Amino acid sequence: MEDATPTLDVHGAADMDRPELEALIRELILEREAETRDPNTLTLIAWGGDLDRIWPTTILATTAAASGMDVVVFFTFWGLFSLVREDKRITGTNWMTKGMAAMNRPSASHAGLSKMNLSGMGPAMMRKLAAENGIAPPEELLASAADLGVKLWPCQMTMDLMGLQLSDMIDGLAEPVGAATAIERMKHSAINLFI
Amino acid sequence: MEDATPTLDVHGAADMDRPELEALIRELILEREAETRDPNTLTLIAWGGDLDRIWPTTILATTAAASGMDVVVFFTFWGLFSLVREDKRITGTNWMTKGMAAMNRPSASHAGLSKMNLSGMGPAMMRKLAAENGIAPPEELLASAADLGVKLWPCQMTMDLMGLQLSDMIDGLAEPVGAATAIERMKHSAINLFI
Amino acid sequence: MEDATPTLDVHGAADMDRPELEALIRELILEREAETRDPNTLTLIAWGGDLDRIWPTTILATTAAASGMDVVVFFTFWGLFSLVREDKRITGTNWMTKGMAAMNRPSASHAGLSKMNLSGMGPAMMRKLAAENGIAPPEELLASAADLGVKLWPCQMTMDLMGLQLSDMIDGLAEPVGAATAIERMKHSAINLFI
Repeated sequence: MEDATPTLDVHGAADMDRPELEALIRELILEREAETRDPNTLTLIAWGGDLDRIWPTTILATTAAASGMDVVVFFTFWGLFSLVREDKRITGTNWMTKGMAAMNRPSASHAGLSKMNLSGMGPAMMRKLAAENGIAPPEELLASAADLGVKLWPCQMTMDLMGLQLSDMIDGLAEPVGAATAIERMKHSAINLFI
Repeated sequence: MEDATPTLDVHGAADMDRPELEALIRELILEREAETRDPNTLTLIAWGGDLDRIWPTTILATTAAASGMDVVVFFTFWGLFSLVREDKRITGTNWMTKGMAAMNRPSASHAGLSKMNLSGMGPAMMRKLAAENGIAPPEELLASAADLGVKLWPCQMTMDLMGLQLSDMIDGLAEPVGAATAIERMKHSAINLFI
Repeated sequence: MEDATPTLDVHGAADMDRPELEALIRELILEREAETRDPNTLTLIAWGGDLDRIWPTTILATTAAASGMDVVVFFTFWGLFSLVREDKRITGTNWMTKGMAAMNRPSASHAGLSKMNLSGMGPAMMRKLAAENGIAPPEELLASAADLGVKLWPCQMTMDLMGLQLSDMIDGLAEPVGAATAIERMKHSAINLFI
């Protein structure tokens, strides 16, 4: 071994002796630790609350979790309304937030479509087609997601903005978090999507 | 070398002997293989079918493929309608899916705008402006994408839901796949976008 | 050390001698250099110009930059209009681009909502609620972003398409770039989102 021709010609590393070789390995380990991208990790930002967005969100989350991935969904803006209980017709803490909830009935069960909504006929048709094809509705997928260990993170800022309270929301949610927490999580996720 | 002061002070690795050093390298290799992020890989989820979404989708896909990247576009929800042949006015297998196709004429050639559609005048203006600026329309970019080796994956679930069949679709598509396949692909892609 | 039992049994690497060990390390380093994923890097594609999209864009950008991340926002399609100066009522170089600006008044200060716009009452309510909750409006967040070192990249193709000129835009922008530059940047970013 002592006589072997060195082949490590990167970084001027040829002719490296043992301490140098160790330093290189140490560097590789440190870089890896700084990176810590976890290939098994998925983070979704559920921005949209329409049926045609909350469906992909919940399908991706449950499919990934079922295959053993570590999944977080951060619900913000319109997406947060998907987490409201089905029996809550009106949420909000003042006339403005109450007015918004009145115009945009909360809960994934009542989600409209971003196009071809047709006063609710579009979503009804889509749900019927889905049922015929064995695709679960998003409110069921949300419940499955929680059962599968998907972490459902409500956005604190949106809760304040929209006057939503945890008592308005379905069971199984994590504590509300802010954008900084979502960003920290995404730094280490293999897949990040804004839906 | 035998007398060298060990410098490998990470993970309690100082004073490592040869087998331990090898074990460390082995671990680094295994971690890397588990990760296998390919920096040359792009995966797009083409969710939107409007002109203002299918355009970015096809521009990003063709630009990346032209620079040598390995590109997959997974067409789901409204995005799937972009893949319908221009000469198919109506698709669908029952009154509901036929009705949807009638209200939302398929093919990228007939895509509307998500805002300022103005009964079709918006898209016509946008296409004219694009032509004046040498930007190819999305139906041409889709054909270029296939020529450049971009893999076009139709979403099986959406095909079932919308009553679309491969015979309705343009040439050059891959076999339909499910969300699990798209997720597996994204785990290894450097860039993943939901458009 | 010479007598140590080899434990490096990956890649047929057991019984490796010193040159082979070095070759393995070299390979690991080369792979890492090809990858160069920077865990501290965020790239946003600001596609949407509505208040409910430009807000998440600017909140994520400023939050990440405040925590020391290297942030780029690539403004394209409707998102580019967010960068127009507040005092520019009309932009454009011909009747079509002028017409678009007239129908879709530029600047983040005048952004509508993608739903519940209610002829501008929706955005006004949302801004009032935000102010009550201490959330800065997006036009202020854009200025903060530039101050925090966020790089604001206008999309050259969209500028041509929409007839926008740098003289129409707010201060602090980088030179316009194309899709290829944005893709190159995203290849090395830990977080990439299309908003």
